[in-house]
Amino acid sequence: MTDYGRAFAKWREAAGDHWPAYTRHPFVQGLADGSLPRQAFLGYLTQDYLFLIHFARAWALAVTKAETPEEMRLAAATVSALVNDEIRLHIDTCARAGLTEADLRTAEEAPANLAYTRYVLDAGHSGDLLDLLAALAPCVLGYGEIGARLSREATSDTYAEWIGTYAADDYQALCRDVGQLIDGAVARRIGPDPEQTPRWPALCRHFTKATKLEAGFWEMGLAE
Amino acid sequence: MTDYGRAFAKWREAAGDHWPAYTRHPFVQGLADGSLPRQAFLGYLTQDYLFLIHFARAWALAVTKAETPEEMRLAAATVSALVNDEIRLHIDTCARAGLTEADLRTAEEAPANLAYTRYVLDAGHSGDLLDLLAALAPCVLGYGEIGARLSREATSDTYAEWIGTYAADDYQALCRDVGQLIDGAVARRIGPDPEQTPRWPALCRHFTKATKLEAGFWEMGLAE
Amino acid sequence: MTDYGRAFAKWREAAGDHWPAYTRHPFVQGLADGSLPRQAFLGYLTQDYLFLIHFARAWALAVTKAETPEEMRLAAATVSALVNDEIRLHIDTCARAGLTEADLRTAEEAPANLAYTRYVLDAGHSGDLLDLLAALAPCVLGYGEIGARLSREATSDTYAEWIGTYAADDYQALCRDVGQLIDGAVARRIGPDPEQTPRWPALCRHFTKATKLEAGFWEMGLAE
Amino acid sequence: MTDYGRAFAKWREAAGDHWPAYTRHPFVQGLADGSLPRQAFLGYLTQDYLFLIHFARAWALAVTKAETPEEMRLAAATVSALVNDEIRLHIDTCARAGLTEADLRTAEEAPANLAYTRYVLDAGHSGDLLDLLAALAPCVLGYGEIGARLSREATSDTYAEWIGTYAADDYQALCRDVGQLIDGAVARRIGPDPEQTPRWPALCRHFTKATKLEAGFWEMGLAE
Repeated sequence: MTDYGRAFAKWREAAGDHWPAYTRHPFVQGLADGSLPRQAFLGYLTQDYLFLIHFARAWALAVTKAETPEEMRLAAATVSALVNDEIRLHIDTCARAGLTEADLRTAEEAPANLAYTRYVLDAGHSGDLLDLLAALAPCVLGYGEIGARLSREATSDTYAEWIGTYAADDYQALCRDVGQLIDGAVARRIGPDPEQTPRWPALCRHFTKATKLEAGFWEMGLAE
Repeated sequence: MTDYGRAFAKWREAAGDHWPAYTRHPFVQGLADGSLPRQAFLGYLTQDYLFLIHFARAWALAVTKAETPEEMRLAAATVSALVNDEIRLHIDTCARAGLTEADLRTAEEAPANLAYTRYVLDAGHSGDLLDLLAALAPCVLGYGEIGARLSREATSDTYAEWIGTYAADDYQALCRDVGQLIDGAVARRIGPDPEQTPRWPALCRHFTKATKLEAGFWEMGLAE
Repeated sequence: MTDYGRAFAKWREAAGDHWPAYTRHPFVQGLADGSLPRQAFLGYLTQDYLFLIHFARAWALAVTKAETPEEMRLAAATVSALVNDEIRLHIDTCARAGLTEADLRTAEEAPANLAYTRYVLDAGHSGDLLDLLAALAPCVLGYGEIGARLSREATSDTYAEWIGTYAADDYQALCRDVGQLIDGAVARRIGPDPEQTPRWPALCRHFTKATKLEAGFWEMGLAE
Repeated sequence: MTDYGRAFAKWREAAGDHWPAYTRHPFVQGLADGSLPRQAFLGYLTQDYLFLIHFARAWALAVTKAETPEEMRLAAATVSALVNDEIRLHIDTCARAGLTEADLRTAEEAPANLAYTRYVLDAGHSGDLLDLLAALAPCVLGYGEIGARLSREATSDTYAEWIGTYAADDYQALCRDVGQLIDGAVARRIGPDPEQTPRWPALCRHFTKATKLEAGFWEMGLAE
């Protein structure tokens, strides 16, 4: 079901317990059974709005670091999806919950949010496209995995809209595209047997670090 | 007609004779009267294909340097227009002329091309969004001005498709949007009286330098 | 005494209570009166070693964004001082406390550390030299101010070496040089009356944000 | 004699005829036999002053992309050598020839100069440290090779000072250090058998491109 390519499967495995600590975090379980307090959800949405802006910047950075027209096109499509669709959706959801766009814009980024987004951007600036993709993957693909699972397992409708966003066909298609982008970028830069090269553990480190920072993001959400 | 905002008008004026040396270059006149040799046009198209890839990267860099959602949205829309439409158009035009996409991809960037695109990218990396926009403006808005003028003045149909691309309503609308983006970015960062500040001559220098590099690009086209 | 230039004085004032919340944080008071637990100090030193590496990267980024040979020279001198002297000093201090360089290198960056260093790097990547300098200033100049004050006010010798490092003539001279670099960079880019321009609040925001992240860094130190 | 490591030897071989087209360019032969017109040499020195500023920026970018303290230290030392020594030497040589520092600063960068320096910077921004080092290598190590050869083969004293700079022990030591930095960075990122990986041809392309741009720089020097 949530098969987003070969590199993702390997990186997820390398992340060990950190992966379920993120994808099955109490915050996520609270979305599934509806027990997450509304206030925590709104606090999360506000930070996530700010997150998406910097995440879109990181995907734009990926456009500047692409080596082929295909890499460039897919990264640019992701920027568009984030800037035009996903951020818009956040604004609408927040509006229904009583938060204006001005509220969102003037909110202060929490340290856990800063740590995550700026780490991803720096992974891109200090390395090449692969370093950036390894740091981007846990969010894009992890949300895909969470959305797909909760659409089957959720026992409450309270957060059905959120779950539906990430379980939706178009989001799942984006995840498969991103998985292919990653596999292609790995093959193009490292070759057919990437796990045997010294770059592999470096990429796993980026993936695992970003996975931990995702868990920290949920943690911040619960603390709101 | 070609009113693309206040900053552009001032920068164009500050560029002095360099502006018409670019927009009324013999290459451009050869497009207008059809006297440009086909071979020179194809050589130009090939380099311009490579140019657009790096130009799209520069607009993606602008997304990473935006300060407001509006700046981000417009820069992202320009990336999409370049990656999905304008580059595609080049591939189609070249295909009709017998150049395959593989020909385009494997062509070597000429030094005049390298000098221009990498200068623009570096203006962005070394400065802020305004520095980048000042270096991006001569290409985007100059082509708008050339397209609009040639659509009125051309005496030959030979290069009507090229002229039509840049005279078209959607390209002219893009130019007005970019002009507004620039004026807004100037107001937001420098204030209502930008010409009196020390940043202004620095921005004019970027604009004039990029204008000269545009002329060098036509020159390269003629030399093909 | 700790006069590090005009812009710093204004930015510090604009930071309001956040400035003393950083420079007079309980961690700092614990350095002054010797009450800071050794374990907290060693935990801080370990994170500060990692911090300095990324701080040196941020000063190297400043070299790439300098506009004059003087700006370039001073930023390069700061990189050298950090890479060759200050990081070395940390390694020696830690060695005496039983922490090897390998311990330092393999330590994991805490989120508060990540948030701070990557925020500063991103301030540089997204903006120009001034944005970067405004985000760098609280650390460099705040430590100068803390060192100078504690050298007069400390009531214990326990942390005299740490205090001596930042109270030392060469560190104080560095702070004055950085203060001049900032004032020159402000004059060159914004002009003689910077506070009246829209860039000023943006620079104050970077300074205040970095100041808060410094307080978060001490907080992390206490929590170790 | 000019053994600057394994990767350099392989990259030089891969560059084929482009390598001697650079290192044995007529401009270089004119330095060896004294036949290079003084005016051409001064024109070259002026452009080279501007080149060194951007080359120092590129080495500073390498500091931001280093993965180990050793990589960082050596890149930082190269920035210092460029900013404090080599640029200074240029200013002194030019002063003796009647060119003031103001002349140098206000000179306009030639397109061949722009193309080269900005290409190197972009190789760094778009890739990782290895991409940047492959683009930096032809200048640093090629000058070492040229200096060492001309110190043996020169038949005129006219340009003995220039030759002496690059034949000198400290410059040759720098070349060996840079060669080691490259070999270490290759081993750390690609592994013991780098030539078999897809990254290798990409690195060779950067090296060859920069080699061609070096030849273009000499060409510009002759055209002055």
